[in-house]
This record gives sequence, C-alpha cells and structure tokens, in this order.
Amino acid sequence: MGQGFTQISEVQAILETLRGPDEAAGAAAEARNGQLTKPPGALGRLEELAIWYCAWHGDGRARIAAPQIIVFAGNHGVTAQGVSAFPAEVTAQMVANFQAGGAAINQLARCYGARMDVHALALENPTADFTQGPAMTEAEMVAALRAGWDAVDPGSDLLVVGEMGIGNTTSASAILHLLYGGDAGDWTGQGTGVDAAGLALKTRVVRDAAVLHRGATGLEVLARVGGRELAAMAGAILRARVQGIPVLLDGFICTAAAACLHSAAPGALDHCLAGHVSAEAAHGAALERLGKVPILSLGMRLGEGSGAALAIGVMQGALACHSGMATFAEAGVAAG
Amino acid sequence: MGQGFTQISEVQAILETLRGPDEAAGAAAEARNGQLTKPPGALGRLEELAIWYCAWHGDGRARIAAPQIIVFAGNHGVTAQGVSAFPAEVTAQMVANFQAGGAAINQLARCYGARMDVHALALENPTADFTQGPAMTEAEMVAALRAGWDAVDPGSDLLVVGEMGIGNTTSASAILHLLYGGDAGDWTGQGTGVDAAGLALKTRVVRDAAVLHRGATGLEVLARVGGRELAAMAGAILRARVQGIPVLLDGFICTAAAACLHSAAPGALDHCLAGHVSAEAAHGAALERLGKVPILSLGMRLGEGSGAALAIGVMQGALACHSGMATFAEAGVAAG
Repeated sequence: MGQGFTQISEVQAILETLRGPDEAAGAAAEARNGQLTKPPGALGRLEELAIWYCAWHGDGRARIAAPQIIVFAGNHGVTAQGVSAFPAEVTAQMVANFQAGGAAINQLARCYGARMDVHALALENPTADFTQGPAMTEAEMVAALRAGWDAVDPGSDLLVVGEMGIGNTTSASAILHLLYGGDAGDWTGQGTGVDAAGLALKTRVVRDAAVLHRGATGLEVLARVGGRELAAMAGAILRARVQGIPVLLDGFICTAAAACLHSAAPGALDHCLAGHVSAEAAHGAALERLGKVPILSLGMRLGEGSGAALAIGVMQGALACHSGMATFAEAGVAAG
Repeated sequence: MGQGFTQISEVQAILETLRGPDEAAGAAAEARNGQLTKPPGALGRLEELAIWYCAWHGDGRARIAAPQIIVFAGNHGVTAQGVSAFPAEVTAQMVANFQAGGAAINQLARCYGARMDVHALALENPTADFTQGPAMTEAEMVAALRAGWDAVDPGSDLLVVGEMGIGNTTSASAILHLLYGGDAGDWTGQGTGVDAAGLALKTRVVRDAAVLHRGATGLEVLARVGGRELAAMAGAILRARVQGIPVLLDGFICTAAAACLHSAAPGALDHCLAGHVSAEAAHGAALERLGKVPILSLGMRLGEGSGAALAIGVMQGALACHSGMATFAEAGVAAG
C-alpha cells in the first residue's frame, strides 16, 4: 500500500511498482453491461467509462458515492517576471474564498455531492523563480508531494485535484515544453487572460526556463519548473493509485503535473481519465501525449478542479446506469 | 398562456405568437456573471448556459431544482417494412421497464433529481405505414400533440422529452429528409443497430416516403411521417415554451420532432438547447440546421431522453456556479 516517502527516489520507487486495474471486476462489469436493457453500445462512451471505473474501483457493479475534490494552492517566484494578469495576492484571497464556500469549485462540489478540501501550501514563501534556478529544493518538493499524498481520503471513491496559484500556467507550460519539446510557443497560452504582449513575455520566460533546465525528465521537471500545488496534485494522484481510487484529471495545470508522473513511469496515469479539455491552447495537445480523450469540452479555463468536477456528474450518471439498470432477463425485454 | 387546442391550425396559431426570453432577467444574469470570483469567461460555456437559462426561466439568479423528464412511447406501422433490428413488442416491454424503474433513463432521472413520467400512446394501435399514406389522421396527430402538451408539469424548471418506439429512427429520418432535402442516405443511419442490408432497406423506405409526401412542411410533416411519440414530444416542447420552461433536446428522434416545430415557426426552439449529439450519423447535421451546438458528445444513441438527461447534470452545475458563487466584492478578491 505504500507508507509514504521522505525523498524523491522513494517516490520514483513507488511509481515503478504500481498495480493495474482489477481484471476480474472489469470482466464482471463488461459482462453485466452486455445484459442491460439497451441495444449493444447504445450508451456510447458511458459504457466504457463505467466498465473502466468498475475495473479500477475493484467492483463490477460500482456506484460513485463519495467523490473527493482537493484544491491545492501555491505561490510562484516566476510571477516576478510579470507573467500573470493578476497580482500574486489573489492566490491567498482565493484560498479564503474556497474556505468560505464562495468559489466555483465549492458550488460544483455541493452540486455533485463531493467532499471538498483546501490546502494552502506555504503561500507566504513562493517557490524560486525558475528562470533563475530550480523552483524547489528536494526537501520542498518532497514536502509538497507529501502534502498531496496525505490529503487523499482513503475512503473516497473518485478523486479530483484542482489548483490555485497565480503564475502557474507559466509553470505548466514550462513542464510540457521540457517534457515534449517543440517550440515554447506550442505550450504557452493566455492563462487567465494575458494580452498579446503578455503572451509574448510568457513564451520567452518558458523558452528561457527550458534552456536553463534542459535534460530534466519525470519528477525532476516537476521540482525544477513546477510549484508546490503542482507537486501536491502529483502526490495526490499517486496516492489515489496506491489506494485504488480512480482520478479525473482537470485542466492544463493538473495535466502538466500529471504528465511528470507519466514521464517518470509510463503507466502511472492508467487510473486517470481526462475530465475535460480546457480553452488553454495547449491542453488538448498535452492530453494527446497522455493518450487521454476528454469527457467534456466546454471551453472552461478556470482551474480549481472545476472541469473535472463537472465530469463527476457524468461519471455518476454512467455508473448509475451501469449498476442500476435492469437486465433483459430481469425486465422480460426481448434482446433483439 | 394558451388553453390548448383541438385542431392543428390552432397549434400553428400558438406557434406564431410565441414570446421571447425575459430580457431583464438575462441582463441581470449577465451583470452578475461579470462580478463572480473568476477571470472573465473562465467558466467557458457554463457562463453562456447559465445566462441563457436565467433569461428563459425569468430569474437572473436561478437554480435548477425541479427538472422533469417525460418519456413518450408509440408504435409505428412502418415496421412492417422490416426497418428495425428489434420486434415491435419491445416498445411495450420497455414501457414496462420504464414503469418498473429499470431503464437507463430511470437511473439518470434519479441521479440528477428529476421527476420522471412515462406516457404510452395507443401502443396497441400503431400509426399507419407512411410508405403507403399519412402515418396519422389529423385527429390522431392532435391527440398525440395534446398528450405531450398535457404531460408537462407547469411547476418544473427544465424539461427533457425522450421517446421509445421501435421503428422511430426511420420516422425521424423521413422527417429530416422531407424538411431538409438532400439524399435519403444523408438522413438515414443505423438506429439501434441494423446491418448494412438493413440500412439499405431503411434508406429506400425513407426515400419512398419522401416521394409520397413531397411538399409537406412543418406540422404536416410530423403528421405524415412522424409518430405519436414524436408528436407528443413536439407538443411538450411547445407547452414548455408557453409555460416559460427551458428544454434540453435529446437525440436524433427528439431533434426530428423539434425540427417540425422549427419548420412551422423559425423561433419555436429558441427556448431549447441541444443536450448532446448522438452517434446516429445525421444527428449532427440536424442540429446544425437548427443552429444548436450540443452540450455533450459521448457517442450515445439510446433515446429515452438519456443524452439530454445527462446534460441536466451539466446545467445544474452551470447554474450552481452562477447563482452560488461569491462576487469579487463579497469575497474581497482583487478583480485583476
């Protein structure tokens, strides 16, 4: 089950010994799906989602009853480069808003019956500006991974991790550029709303960071150009895998954090689905690199876990059908 | 408000005097949206959906608390042509399944807290085979429209209409081919799962029907090649408009029924959104003709209202954000 870790090499070791889904539960779910009162395949992707979930949850007739949403917040030294349209103080202001129940993610958590937790990670102590050196020391990185690991409720049955951190789309772009190459501009977008000059600046910052940290892979990328909330998301996603909890990935920043796990161990995200594709230009390309087809495409670009939270509702519907429907035999319906 | 009708000309008259949305509520919703604690536009399409809903519901800060799903069932004389992979008896068997709570739509209704009603429309008396003449007499058509009209709960705040009727994708294809021209093959797909030979047969039936009923428009198309459950869906959609209840359109058959209203009066579907685009090949093209962009695209092709029911969950999330979030002023967050 994993007893946690105190250094990055231990996290890497956990990543290299991950288990797959419960094949028997998956087979049971597939068999049940074939007997339900509908033409074969008529529920489209809902059928695939339900069978996938049952396999990862280890129950051929599962429902989603206890989803958890965790929002991690961090501050970024790279904001000194002027990469965000918002001042860094907004991170703490939004954490207060999460705690007071006023943000979008609070409403979505309530709407779909999810437990919601907020973890502000050393907001008074931003990560280092990664255009000048690594964003985090190993100790800082381990503490952030550990914060994510510890935040997961082992009793939850579906996990969404979200984030808040002024400047963190720049961090996510730098991660993806380091992992996947191409031009800095391929991975850099408008974030929460920079203008054309701001986008040019951001792109230059991402390019400079990739030059400085060239050659980094996997978890090292996360430490060098990530941030505390990104490392915490990665830690939570990994913990979910070890606990057998399926995960819905959120937007651009969550996906970049997850991509570091994928880079560190190719099967590390097999227990994750893409909740949505965001309006951030490079998110679709990042999901393609991970082999994930988003459930929703609604032009969202808020973060907080909001897109994945919306997909909780879809997953609940998929599992409600799978596990609640009558079979042809039970209903006395001719199977065609 | 409309006191109902006893002949088709009265339905046409209702269609020609429909009101638009509540502009003041829409403006209030738009103003509120601009003050919520998120970057402008960051909730993407959720913002547009929420504002649209508020305008049609007549409340600038609305929530969805009482959705209604109505499933109409009918039998089709055109099944004599061998157009379906399932026997006509399945319609009544599935009605029993709806009544017993065992179908997909029952699970989705429960999942999203919707009231669900089922109306079986003269199943023992199929419509006439529309390759030989009109499917319905005026009296039959009016009775079916009226069944839909009367089925709407005036206290509901969002309506989904679904259907069950072996053979009804053929009816929907014939409607769309009559309304929009092109080749019969453009509007004919595999329905619940006919093979290549079955598809060729269906296409020929649709072509023959279009030749026989050439020149029909609007409600006349619905009477000539529709069916009781399609007419009932149209009646319910129209009643919802008169009552100020927004509607989520479901799949191919629901869209074809709705298209007859649109043909009869171009603004007749302004209170409707497309809940999803189905796997039935021509559904996307039909939605384009109506100017509707689907909320979901999950490869579903079940009918029953299932795709639109899933979209209830998305709409609930959109309105929960819109009406529950704190404003920048309330939360003390800098607006950027």
